[in-house]
Amino acid sequence: MDTFEAIAARRAVKHYDPTHRLSEDEIAQLMQAAVLSPTSFNMQNWRFVLVRDPQVRRRIRAAASDQAQVTDASLLLVLTADLKAWAREPARYWTEAPAAVSEVLVNWMGPFYDGKDQLQRDEAMRSCGLAGQTIMLAAKAMGYDSCPMIGFDPEQVAEIINLPPDHVIGFLVVVGKGIEPAWPRGGQLPLDAVVVTDRFA
Amino acid sequence: MDTFEAIAARRAVKHYDPTHRLSEDEIAQLMQAAVLSPTSFNMQNWRFVLVRDPQVRRRIRAAASDQAQVTDASLLLVLTADLKAWAREPARYWTEAPAAVSEVLVNWMGPFYDGKDQLQRDEAMRSCGLAGQTIMLAAKAMGYDSCPMIGFDPEQVAEIINLPPDHVIGFLVVVGKGIEPAWPRGGQLPLDAVVVTDRFA
Repeated sequence: MDTFEAIAARRAVKHYDPTHRLSEDEIAQLMQAAVLSPTSFNMQNWRFVLVRDPQVRRRIRAAASDQAQVTDASLLLVLTADLKAWAREPARYWTEAPAAVSEVLVNWMGPFYDGKDQLQRDEAMRSCGLAGQTIMLAAKAMGYDSCPMIGFDPEQVAEIINLPPDHVIGFLVVVGKGIEPAWPRGGQLPLDAVVVTDRFA
Repeated sequence: MDTFEAIAARRAVKHYDPTHRLSEDEIAQLMQAAVLSPTSFNMQNWRFVLVRDPQVRRRIRAAASDQAQVTDASLLLVLTADLKAWAREPARYWTEAPAAVSEVLVNWMGPFYDGKDQLQRDEAMRSCGLAGQTIMLAAKAMGYDSCPMIGFDPEQVAEIINLPPDHVIGFLVVVGKGIEPAWPRGGQLPLDAVVVTDRFA
């Protein structure tokens, strides 16, 4: 599917065929696309939790205001990130780079993030946002619908997925075979409400 | 361009033809794609600063370790977000929705975000991430390269673009005509290092 077509056709779909599941090949195609998303310093800080166990999905649904798509969609992903990815063997993010480049980047990462809790968290949310859009556009191009979700209790979901210390949840994404169209777009702001030239007035 | 092709071909390109500029139509096409990105509650909290003034671009370059792509690329965007979008006339995000739906959502937004500074900031970073990937994939589909950037002094850039109170910078994105290919991918982690099934061990 054409990229612009996927961008325009991607909508937050809430109702899914509960009997449909993605094939293993489709899941692999989706995740292989996801990991081509950019991350700062190529640190690939996302950790994608692919929830397959129906019981785990039911528990997450209960922690997400009982929204049906959590169990009904073909696939449930919890997008999480490792806040300390920058500190965990960072040389592995640059194995293919020239040694000089790798060394500079690896030596820069530590001081860039060390002790900066807010920056580490920002990085988690940025990376999850970038990868989440890749996943949703790829899903659309595969003929599927998706829905990004933040309406859940993050502490409960963290407990259900056994989220490690120093990790944080970005958001949930479901992917599947939509059976009802999304609502019409809710109310697009005009471009001039969101695009500023050069500097804010 | 096919969506998967755009996802695979998008790389962080650092070297651009400094004589090339996007046409007004191309800029409009890119921004119209950007605003189709999802936001929580459809609140469209991104504020895209399109930096056209060469002097402003030079100042931002100086605040970004003198990285050449800040001035050389055809387009420089500062992706920012309004932390208080949820509180600014939220009914406008749902003008096309049935009144009952609109009312529920609008009444839910306030309590969802009020007083939750970290959640507001997370939302800014998530939205910038989602829209940033849309912009970079759309740029690729238009035949352009791009580069997301966090290597800059956020306080200096905030001052240069006159960032209003209650707004935050997500990251920079440049778009243009690349003249040197990106480095080979630095070191892709294996899928099983970033994909977890059901729950963390």
